Amino acid sequence: MRKVAICAPATPLRRRYAEAVTALAAQEFPDIDLHFHDQCFESEGHFAGRDEVRLAALLECSNDPQFDAVWFAKGGYGSNRIAADFISHLKVAAHEKAYLGYSDCGTLLGALYRAGIGYPVHAPMPVDIKRDDGGDAVRRAMSWMSGDDSGIEPSLTGRPAVAFNLYTLSMLVGTQFMPVLKGHDVLIEEVGEYEYAIDRLMFHLAENLQDAAGIRLGEVTAIPENDRPFGADAEEIVRYWCARYGIDYLGRAMIGHSATNRIVPFGLEARAAPA
Amino acid sequence: MRKVAICAPATPLRRRYAEAVTALAAQEFPDIDLHFHDQCFESEGHFAGRDEVRLAALLECSNDPQFDAVWFAKGGYGSNRIAADFISHLKVAAHEKAYLGYSDCGTLLGALYRAGIGYPVHAPMPVDIKRDDGGDAVRRAMSWMSGDDSGIEPSLTGRPAVAFNLYTLSMLVGTQFMPVLKGHDVLIEEVGEYEYAIDRLMFHLAENLQDAAGIRLGEVTAIPENDRPFGADAEEIVRYWCARYGIDYLGRAMIGHSATNRIVPFGLEARAAPA
Repeated sequence: MRKVAICAPATPLRRRYAEAVTALAAQEFPDIDLHFHDQCFESEGHFAGRDEVRLAALLECSNDPQFDAVWFAKGGYGSNRIAADFISHLKVAAHEKAYLGYSDCGTLLGALYRAGIGYPVHAPMPVDIKRDDGGDAVRRAMSWMSGDDSGIEPSLTGRPAVAFNLYTLSMLVGTQFMPVLKGHDVLIEEVGEYEYAIDRLMFHLAENLQDAAGIRLGEVTAIPENDRPFGADAEEIVRYWCARYGIDYLGRAMIGHSATNRIVPFGLEARAAPA
Repeated sequence: MRKVAICAPATPLRRRYAEAVTALAAQEFPDIDLHFHDQCFESEGHFAGRDEVRLAALLECSNDPQFDAVWFAKGGYGSNRIAADFISHLKVAAHEKAYLGYSDCGTLLGALYRAGIGYPVHAPMPVDIKRDDGGDAVRRAMSWMSGDDSGIEPSLTGRPAVAFNLYTLSMLVGTQFMPVLKGHDVLIEEVGEYEYAIDRLMFHLAENLQDAAGIRLGEVTAIPENDRPFGADAEEIVRYWCARYGIDYLGRAMIGHSATNRIVPFGLEARAAPA
């Protein structure tokens, strides 16, 4: 039996999604015991509760020795507001856990990785149940929690890797939460941004990313239509900035805001699924 | 007679706006001689011509000793792509000029200010002629060029100041173009961004902005409607991040993407309008 605590450091999860994930887990993953923290369903303006409320739930889940993993319910924006207090209040029990999520919650994964605390893992979240074939995404995360590593991103090499939403990573550079990415494969994905905004974020990232082994591009989805074509697609944009800054472009990855989103354990230590 | 070269380092200007600005100048500013570079009207994908075309025009305007000022025609995104080559190819004649513009072209103003070249000035651009009361905006920039400093942002103190679009400045932090802002009043404005995105950009800026005297908030316009209210307005967001990071919040400023946009000469040297 693996016990997994679920909280929402950014925006709230709908109860029906929690129920659907709970039902799927009960049927297919009898060895996994999911605990949805009530804070997942709180709502205060944009967020799943005020900063203090989200922080308290996140620390409760992370510092409780009975849990083997903390699974972020949903992204959407807001985990950066509680990241500093999160890292500074983690206790010993928090160091042995896996932390799973992506998108905005990449901020917490990055902060944990920089601090050398626990095992940050880019992975589908409970909210992904709402997607077409969303069961596959949620199943992939829970399979990994159960010791099955078949859902791991296939392009991972012998080098350490991280995976981030491009905008999220771009907001981390230069901050106290930015991990040292020397020698890493840096996997990025994006959703809902214009091509010119992707170009601008890549400029910012390339200027600030030093010593990475290279950049690999995941899915870029839901690009809004601009008043005129940009003149280059997302992969051409990433190639352009990599070439300009002497960063190796490594090709494509199967991460992104879709049901195909693969697992990327940060670094090398958590590469094998937990036994 | 002051000679002013106009080019478009980001996106193209419509000819009818150039004609309207030329007509206004002829009627009201006989001492100003405007030279719209043909590159202003070029179009290649998103940009006013390819990188090399925009760079060549920008350098032509900047390095020609007959011009007293370079006026950026329009923002829109793209000046960052030519900023490094721009700075590295500037000649002596470029050092005595004023450079006027805002929004995306803030990247060039920032890069010039960091390099200590010329007189960067946040100011309305020719494209502003299209706004309601846009003549007032364009007039304000040309009045400053003529030696009238009545259009200067009224909040400026004895301290050096800069003015930026928040997103533009946020993309500059940590880059080779980021000016040293120690002791500066940092004026920011934003257009067309969700409140949660403004919050995220302020996080990134606050984490990376050291030793500034404080932040002053200009206009925040055209905020899109999100699927739920954020829970704080733009000024509350800026106050929140300033308070968290011990940055003085200085109050409001009259800069922004509107016809009221005031003049902010960077630093102290160019504070007085040119004689």
